[in-house]
Amino acid sequence: MTDDLATVGERAALARIIPRLARAEALLGPGDDAALLAAPDGRVLLSTDAMVQGPDFRRAWSTPFELGWKAAVTNLIDVAAMGGRPTGLLVALAAPGETPVEDLEGIADGLAAACAELAPGVGVVGGDLTRSPVLALSITVTGSLDGRAPVLRSGARPGDVLAYSGRLGLAAAGLRLLFATGEEDADAIAALRHRHGPLLAEQLAPRPPIADGVRAAEGGATAMLDVSDGLALDARRIAEASGVRIDLDAAALAPGDLDGGEAHALLATFGRSTPIPATFRVLGRVLDGSGLTVGGEPYAGRGGWDPFVDGAASSPRTATGGTGAADSENTAVSP
Amino acid sequence: MTDDLATVGERAALARIIPRLARAEALLGPGDDAALLAAPDGRVLLSTDAMVQGPDFRRAWSTPFELGWKAAVTNLIDVAAMGGRPTGLLVALAAPGETPVEDLEGIADGLAAACAELAPGVGVVGGDLTRSPVLALSITVTGSLDGRAPVLRSGARPGDVLAYSGRLGLAAAGLRLLFATGEEDADAIAALRHRHGPLLAEQLAPRPPIADGVRAAEGGATAMLDVSDGLALDARRIAEASGVRIDLDAAALAPGDLDGGEAHALLATFGRSTPIPATFRVLGRVLDGSGLTVGGEPYAGRGGWDPFVDGAASSPRTATGGTGAADSENTAVSP
Repeated sequence: MTDDLATVGERAALARIIPRLARAEALLGPGDDAALLAAPDGRVLLSTDAMVQGPDFRRAWSTPFELGWKAAVTNLIDVAAMGGRPTGLLVALAAPGETPVEDLEGIADGLAAACAELAPGVGVVGGDLTRSPVLALSITVTGSLDGRAPVLRSGARPGDVLAYSGRLGLAAAGLRLLFATGEEDADAIAALRHRHGPLLAEQLAPRPPIADGVRAAEGGATAMLDVSDGLALDARRIAEASGVRIDLDAAALAPGDLDGGEAHALLATFGRSTPIPATFRVLGRVLDGSGLTVGGEPYAGRGGWDPFVDGAASSPRTATGGTGAADSENTAVSP
Repeated sequence: MTDDLATVGERAALARIIPRLARAEALLGPGDDAALLAAPDGRVLLSTDAMVQGPDFRRAWSTPFELGWKAAVTNLIDVAAMGGRPTGLLVALAAPGETPVEDLEGIADGLAAACAELAPGVGVVGGDLTRSPVLALSITVTGSLDGRAPVLRSGARPGDVLAYSGRLGLAAAGLRLLFATGEEDADAIAALRHRHGPLLAEQLAPRPPIADGVRAAEGGATAMLDVSDGLALDARRIAEASGVRIDLDAAALAPGDLDGGEAHALLATFGRSTPIPATFRVLGRVLDGSGLTVGGEPYAGRGGWDPFVDGAASSPRTATGGTGAADSENTAVSP
């Protein structure tokens, strides 16, 4: 393969990648030492998230386009969860020298497509390309509250209604299918894509409800977060931060909703007399007390995910495993 | 070792790390889905840079404190190079499960110390901790221009004076010493630290002149950048962006200044009649034409560094090398 990063070099690779990225509405974009972005109300929302080959994704499962897409949306949703409007992305891409430049073009296309579809006007305002033994994407997202107060985790009050927008559980179901293929079997994965395309897409190229963050804030949401570690854990986070109990309506839950990792949803609370935005569905209510209950009964499931403890524990070494980097290729994203 | 990330888990590790980080003057710090930072003049400067174990640093050479320090300063200087005042850092840290939590504490201490010394008031406003086969630090820095125009690379005009603040060449000299140790020989490195501490510090824990970015901007700098890829290449960048020729004064240069990678300096141009800030030293002048000359003679040296082309070429596989991640441990930072 002649067309890899080590052959082409950083400068020529960037010349191929940058034109494919979504154009950002920056005051000053890539090319100088720093970008300059408008912060119209004198404040800027900021969040950062990294995805590393092995623990967070497999090259055998995700296309480069899907990697770029997912890296973008998992960051964009963090701004939405504050009630903010995403305004820009900074992308630190680390890749082995033998990575085909075509793969980086695919990542750029996925980033651009995700922004165009789910956060129009957002683009990449800055970045970095470094060499690394494994592919990794570290993204920082910026956002604007446009003068509103941020919607925190701590604002839920007894009497509020709990509601969500997006998908629960499906991403975890997609991941279980992928694990069942035997991890790196290309034929099995191709067959799976053919049979279960939409379900796999929930895991590999999810469409979280990014625009609903502003809708919820404008609709008077009292607390909000994005469900990233399973509904049970994230509902508990609101309960803990707000000093309340959250009671989920058992009839509103589908199997797997509570503990599925990597849901792509916004979970918010609204005052009792506030009309809930049309894209949100009621899931429960906020009560005096603490912790999480389902239909009034304490919920014992842990419903969380620790990349170090669970990541290592859920994936015993396989026959193809070795030491160091090779091992983590065989380690789970979520159980 | 019981006290590693895989044993302790993400949450407990973060509980140990976060209190050690410099406290940021954020409107809303870590703990929600995104941080909220003031952008007093309605704009925000943003830059991102990653450091990956292997290509960018060696665990055998750098202490965790030094890694944190260097990751902070190499980002802070990017805001300074625009004439900006750094306001915050977002830190995505990726580490193997077997990393001692103590190492992450050391990284946090280095980040905090660099901010306290070189950019007081700046702290970590957000971050991410992920599992990875190698240690990697990806940092995004934010900054404020406090109402000033950004100082671009493109503003140099014929007649301007070229000046720098900081150190040229010394970091490269420090790196040559480290390579001469045989790469991973702990005793040789300890001896080197004893004999050449200050020179090694230029490479491992540099002190770039971060506060001089605002000084230069307030002093009327017409163009500026941070010298990160060698003086020759970075002077050429100003020449190219500004459509001018830059002529360096041979008498002002020390051996190694021109092509040393990883200088830690700001390079700026000032109008002929502008008094140059006291911390800057004159290095040459801006003329009609294009490209780089030294004492009027064309300078042919490439003076650049490509992490893919040069990184791979400068470091043949060694006897301890293997495949994949292990290889890049043996691959050079810069030649």
